[in-house]
Amino acid sequence: MSSSSPASPQWIYRFGGDTTEGNASLRALLGGKGANLAEMASIGLPVPPGFTITTEVCAYYYAHHRTYPENLDAQLHQAVAWLEAQQGKGFGDKDNPLLVSVRSGAPVSMPGMMDTILNLGLNDETVEGLARLTDNARFAYDSYRRLIQMYGNVVEGIDSRAFEEILDAVKSETGAASDADLSAAALQEVIRRYQEVYREATGHDFPQDTFEQLWGAVGAVFGSWMNDRAVAYRHLHGLSDDMGTAVNVQAMVFGNMGDDSATGVAFSRNPATGEKAFYGEYLVNAQGEDVVAGIRTPQPLTRAMAEKMGRPGASLEEVMPAAAQELFDILTRLEQHYRDMQDVEFTIEKGKLYILQTRAGKRTAAAAVKIAVDMAEEGLISREEAVLRIDPSLLDQLLHPTIAPDADREVIARGLPASPGAASGKVVFTAKDAEEWAGRGEKVILVRYETSPEDIRGMHAAEGILTARGGMTSHAAVVARGMGKPCITGAGALRIQEAKRRMEVDGRVFEEGDLITIDGGTGEVMPGALPTVEASLSGEFGTLMAWADAFRRMRVRTNAETPADARTAVRFGAEGIGLCRTEHMFFQEDRIVAMREMIVADSAEERRQALEKLLPMQRADFVELFLIMEERPITIRFLDPPLHEFLPHTDKEIEEVSKAAGLDPAKLRRRLQELSEANPMLGLRGCRLGILYPEIYRMQARAVFEAVVEVKRRTGKAPRPEIMIPLIATSGELAAIQQEVAEVAEAVRRRTGTDFDYLFGTMIEIPRAALCADDIARHAEFFSFGTNDLTQMTYGLSRDDAGKFLPQYEEKGIFPHDPFQHIDRDGVGQLVRMATERGRGQRPALHVGICGEHGGDPESIDFFEDVGLDYVSCSPYRVPIARLAAAQAALRRRQP
Amino acid sequence: MSSSSPASPQWIYRFGGDTTEGNASLRALLGGKGANLAEMASIGLPVPPGFTITTEVCAYYYAHHRTYPENLDAQLHQAVAWLEAQQGKGFGDKDNPLLVSVRSGAPVSMPGMMDTILNLGLNDETVEGLARLTDNARFAYDSYRRLIQMYGNVVEGIDSRAFEEILDAVKSETGAASDADLSAAALQEVIRRYQEVYREATGHDFPQDTFEQLWGAVGAVFGSWMNDRAVAYRHLHGLSDDMGTAVNVQAMVFGNMGDDSATGVAFSRNPATGEKAFYGEYLVNAQGEDVVAGIRTPQPLTRAMAEKMGRPGASLEEVMPAAAQELFDILTRLEQHYRDMQDVEFTIEKGKLYILQTRAGKRTAAAAVKIAVDMAEEGLISREEAVLRIDPSLLDQLLHPTIAPDADREVIARGLPASPGAASGKVVFTAKDAEEWAGRGEKVILVRYETSPEDIRGMHAAEGILTARGGMTSHAAVVARGMGKPCITGAGALRIQEAKRRMEVDGRVFEEGDLITIDGGTGEVMPGALPTVEASLSGEFGTLMAWADAFRRMRVRTNAETPADARTAVRFGAEGIGLCRTEHMFFQEDRIVAMREMIVADSAEERRQALEKLLPMQRADFVELFLIMEERPITIRFLDPPLHEFLPHTDKEIEEVSKAAGLDPAKLRRRLQELSEANPMLGLRGCRLGILYPEIYRMQARAVFEAVVEVKRRTGKAPRPEIMIPLIATSGELAAIQQEVAEVAEAVRRRTGTDFDYLFGTMIEIPRAALCADDIARHAEFFSFGTNDLTQMTYGLSRDDAGKFLPQYEEKGIFPHDPFQHIDRDGVGQLVRMATERGRGQRPALHVGICGEHGGDPESIDFFEDVGLDYVSCSPYRVPIARLAAAQAALRRRQP
Repeated sequence: MSSSSPASPQWIYRFGGDTTEGNASLRALLGGKGANLAEMASIGLPVPPGFTITTEVCAYYYAHHRTYPENLDAQLHQAVAWLEAQQGKGFGDKDNPLLVSVRSGAPVSMPGMMDTILNLGLNDETVEGLARLTDNARFAYDSYRRLIQMYGNVVEGIDSRAFEEILDAVKSETGAASDADLSAAALQEVIRRYQEVYREATGHDFPQDTFEQLWGAVGAVFGSWMNDRAVAYRHLHGLSDDMGTAVNVQAMVFGNMGDDSATGVAFSRNPATGEKAFYGEYLVNAQGEDVVAGIRTPQPLTRAMAEKMGRPGASLEEVMPAAAQELFDILTRLEQHYRDMQDVEFTIEKGKLYILQTRAGKRTAAAAVKIAVDMAEEGLISREEAVLRIDPSLLDQLLHPTIAPDADREVIARGLPASPGAASGKVVFTAKDAEEWAGRGEKVILVRYETSPEDIRGMHAAEGILTARGGMTSHAAVVARGMGKPCITGAGALRIQEAKRRMEVDGRVFEEGDLITIDGGTGEVMPGALPTVEASLSGEFGTLMAWADAFRRMRVRTNAETPADARTAVRFGAEGIGLCRTEHMFFQEDRIVAMREMIVADSAEERRQALEKLLPMQRADFVELFLIMEERPITIRFLDPPLHEFLPHTDKEIEEVSKAAGLDPAKLRRRLQELSEANPMLGLRGCRLGILYPEIYRMQARAVFEAVVEVKRRTGKAPRPEIMIPLIATSGELAAIQQEVAEVAEAVRRRTGTDFDYLFGTMIEIPRAALCADDIARHAEFFSFGTNDLTQMTYGLSRDDAGKFLPQYEEKGIFPHDPFQHIDRDGVGQLVRMATERGRGQRPALHVGICGEHGGDPESIDFFEDVGLDYVSCSPYRVPIARLAAAQAALRRRQP
Repeated sequence: MSSSSPASPQWIYRFGGDTTEGNASLRALLGGKGANLAEMASIGLPVPPGFTITTEVCAYYYAHHRTYPENLDAQLHQAVAWLEAQQGKGFGDKDNPLLVSVRSGAPVSMPGMMDTILNLGLNDETVEGLARLTDNARFAYDSYRRLIQMYGNVVEGIDSRAFEEILDAVKSETGAASDADLSAAALQEVIRRYQEVYREATGHDFPQDTFEQLWGAVGAVFGSWMNDRAVAYRHLHGLSDDMGTAVNVQAMVFGNMGDDSATGVAFSRNPATGEKAFYGEYLVNAQGEDVVAGIRTPQPLTRAMAEKMGRPGASLEEVMPAAAQELFDILTRLEQHYRDMQDVEFTIEKGKLYILQTRAGKRTAAAAVKIAVDMAEEGLISREEAVLRIDPSLLDQLLHPTIAPDADREVIARGLPASPGAASGKVVFTAKDAEEWAGRGEKVILVRYETSPEDIRGMHAAEGILTARGGMTSHAAVVARGMGKPCITGAGALRIQEAKRRMEVDGRVFEEGDLITIDGGTGEVMPGALPTVEASLSGEFGTLMAWADAFRRMRVRTNAETPADARTAVRFGAEGIGLCRTEHMFFQEDRIVAMREMIVADSAEERRQALEKLLPMQRADFVELFLIMEERPITIRFLDPPLHEFLPHTDKEIEEVSKAAGLDPAKLRRRLQELSEANPMLGLRGCRLGILYPEIYRMQARAVFEAVVEVKRRTGKAPRPEIMIPLIATSGELAAIQQEVAEVAEAVRRRTGTDFDYLFGTMIEIPRAALCADDIARHAEFFSFGTNDLTQMTYGLSRDDAGKFLPQYEEKGIFPHDPFQHIDRDGVGQLVRMATERGRGQRPALHVGICGEHGGDPESIDFFEDVGLDYVSCSPYRVPIARLAAAQAALRRRQP
């Protein structure tokens, strides 16, 4: 704890050796790095001793025109004296010099901050002492030249290239092939020239006074707090400028002091697979930089690893068994202490092990799941913690087929990772071809400039979709995510010649039928068919999901209308269908013709005749869905999109469609003209169609109810469908349709002599419906929030058009995030909360869910838990994500 | 008061003669007609006695499967006995028969209800008695045949044509030219045949029992309560089915009993001019029907009228001086009693005056104003009442030039009365021609199929606008109302041949330059130039408006950007400009070129160069507006519409514009393509333009501030402009623009050395802005509700596209009214209230107004008073309407 008093606050905290003043809880004061070093020292781990200058000094520095508290200098000298005593060395002692590293360390790590200055304490005299002491002049001179280079660059802002050029020159002059070949004498020459550059650039000599070096480094750390990159990063992430950074000064240890020295990285478990086995690599007689530089091949940490790699005897466990055993014990202790898999940097100096850093280790999605489940089963963490540990969006990696890790990725184009998963197939360039080829049993990738609603059947038939234009929210992206198909959009390098059935990428030509592979998780396009790995939903993944299901309050449904999607979703744990978009059922070849006849009909009677043709098909669809979903609820949304979406638009398409459907092209054109709208989003669609042409919704209601009767006849049990009306703005609209649907239900009951039940409800996707939810709830047994449209209307923002300015909005920080990705809690969320409360106020049993794309977004799901929704509904492949996110949201609210 | 007891409720109330049991306050129980008759009787006016069967009987009737309370029959016999005693006649007495009328009378009058059965009580015997008693067999038989006809039609539903055919047949058989020529014998034949038809249609004889007749008529009245037309009317007007109708049974009096009898209509003041003088007309020896039928020319009521009409001696005052004097006394008493101008129906039977009905008289707008002011000055009503009496929307008639009342209207086409006022001028068919002709000093009427934003300058130049297509909310209608120009839209009979510069209407051809007159108040198009009458804003109108101004709390501003509009609005009493749409300033010829250059610019630098050209023009506009408005505030809205509205769209226009502006047509096309949007309403416009192209708003800010400096230099006083940012959804947007504007202000202050002040605020027109108004108010000193867009987004309803289904919505009663006409209090109004409260919660001094079209709608203004807005802003011609409506709204809230 800080022993600060108004007269003399404690500006410096020591760690290691005989005194440790901080611990992990002081992250705000000591920064993340300082707090962790203190924590490790306090539990007795061999951390090189040092001290941390607190973030309060940084705050003081900026509050006082970049000056320091008056007694900081005294405290700093005391701390250095203490460190000298711990190490038995003197700071600037020419016979036995103390060397230190200086590192920044803010409470939150951020890019742009000054990183590290090593070897501080070396000067023209102490370097000789170090050479004598280590009996290694080469090592001493190399350390010194590194100090001058880092210090010159970081503290004085001298361009690194000036130093690199000198190094290259001396290497070439002395015929050295690499840095390691430079002799002690050559390094002395390097140092001489470095100091010359330093003098020219700064107007003064490289500081020989070690305290001057130390103050210079401390000032550079504090200065870096306000550099452009760090400021921009904080603003982008909503972090306060006031928190400040700490400075860590730590005694140097060296892994390059001979064959009894080493340096390396160790994990307490395997970060790739999650297996409970130590993992890592090291280099004898090396510094950390050498491991990173990749000049020498690191050796494995454990005997088991060495055997597996065919390098018996090479492991640390075998080479330095005592140090290795100590390291393994420490890894175990650290994992127990932090209750998570640890990633440790270590150095062995002349046989003595030092731990330089520990942190939670990065891991693959699969490893994250296995580690969390294993730790819970070992009793190290609770099941709740295990569930809370996994970032739900990581699961996306596990649910889709992925390219085998060892496959050779020759990337020919890149686009946006619009829908995850990997797929291989033969290239086709039209939706129609995709259908035909797939019909012959071929796997195809549909390649288009952009997709439109008419491509939907082709998209369904394809293994994956690749477009040259469009963003993450383009038609292709949205539909593909809905279908759970891999998709890359906006791959601008593609030159597609649809008429010639070929495309060119960077001078390379792909003809129709050529194989490609797309990785929708990375946006990479590769030639040929790469091997892929299927997702496994069992094992630890299954265990984790079962635990999550036990914790969550909200139900998870899926948005699905095809039997394939429904089956996938059930496999992924969907507890029902929250959104069955009946219009998608009308795009299939046999239906679109009748649909178009219906649209161009001149009278209600003609419309009814066309609808009569659709009735049996729609009824059969519902029968199949009911049978697949068994007892699970299905929410069926009646026709929603504007009718012109079903019609062809170009002259050529109009001619073709007219001929195929036996329609008069002039009539089709006239109808298109009539149906064209200035703002289709705000036009004739949703329930407005149902009110203008009551026969459409009557047909749909009849198809649903007759399917219910049919299923009851077959299985003995009648499903209870949930009929959902889109785009309701007023209770009057809903009441009118409720009446129509009730009449149809009664007629079907009478005609079939079969009784059945259904729920009647509405989308809440228009702001007015949310505002007047109490009134709407008089006619609705359930609400489902359509947050896509609700966001568009609440923001006055068309998703199709926002692409022109949203990027600049995000860049300028005007929108903190894309409201279509994470729900806008302040505005749209306010409506969601209001509608839920008012609706339930009117009808306490009101069932409330959400079926917009936010239903699969963990951040939004957290909000929906807060509001108290009954369920979320999302695309099949996001169901496990939603299950986990819902569990986490519930668990977070359990904690105080 | 009702003396009802559980055992025997009072079902019947008497009036006239020696007993009157009701009064005007019992409208709910006795219906409007019954309560008024009782009221008149109770103050001693000569009302033929009668009784009212209450609305409670109607309620009972429908609650008990169309049966009556058990003791109603007894009460009815008592009431008839009482009436017999009052009249000294017997109901069914063959020597001295009592005849009665039976009329419906609901608390609210409504179409579709059964109206009247006269002469009830006549049968084959009593008709003879009546003939003897009146010594007028023709009169008696005519009365009887009328009874059979009315009763047969109303009670038994026999088609009236069956009776008319008989009447025609007997006329032709007896050689009678008109009904009046039928002899008594002929009428007896008519009666015989009527009774035959009656028997054939019903299977029974015409009832000879007078009580049977009475029950039949009573049942018909109650039955008519639930007929389709009455039910539809009530549902449309939100009236309850439960209120029911009463039945009035009243002794008959006859104006056709000889030359000492008469019937007529009288007003207590002149309903056309409002002059305080009795007014009306009458016919000697006639029944009410005869006045309506128009066969004889009625005579004037007063000597003064008779003299003015050149018919001295014809007036009632001269023909029946005693009855006339009694009538005049009664008119005076009734006006004093009801404190409003009365419209009275009277009958004189053998010299005795009877009043059959009184009600507030309908009047012209001018008369309404004069009467209200006169009555207040007479002390009859208070000034508050005078102000509350005038329907504000009536003022529209007074503010625009109107066609002289005596002009000969030869109507050649009709359309929708889209913007009131009359205008004459020469027909032109393009906006460009309108400008050219007007430039030569010609008055023109612009005739188009539809107008578009590019026609705006032509619309400004024209006297009036006539379109063949479009509704009340089409572009032409909205813009014309904003300009206060007469406009007719949707005149479907016009066949316009723009290329030939001619139009055909019903076979008649109008060439360019032919004169026409349009009446935007009626939607009528007439050939030639009809004389018009200018509006007068002085006299009683001025007095009334001065009173209104003293009562109102809200300020009234205007929406104006041209000097002409601003001057008109000031003349009409506008207290400032609430919306100056700067984009309208860019449509003028010299500016649109620079505007287009700006739009097609490739870089911010090119854009700035084009904007430099617009700067001096825009600055000059503001200088002029500041000078016209003097001390009055001006709210200047920065550029709002999507940029593509400024570009030409057809190939021909693109070629023309490119040539004129020296632009590359390909570049223009490309830019058009880039700017095209799926949903422009929800796209790149408003503040989004200001954020994407900051240089646009910077230019506008500079023009405003430099104009302020210029005006201060000229007048010594700096105006304080109110800068308003459109389409704000988040506080981040507003904050970014606030920063830009503040920088420009500071730069202008520094460069000119002149200090000035300004207000910075925003439109609230996006639902999110209303929901997050507290946050928005951190950056806004004022709010102005843009309720047009707010309604569109809150309803998810594009005004441009809603025409396809709104009519059917209103027809089906799904929307109680068009939300663009009267603000939707439940939904949109909720946002207005919420934003006002939250905004003021954040910033108590926040100034809040409204500048959508609802700002000129009295019903909406009432709501805005309720919310507590500071002002409304509307088009210049609606300013007086808003002043009056605001006063009424304030007065209504003064009352308990």
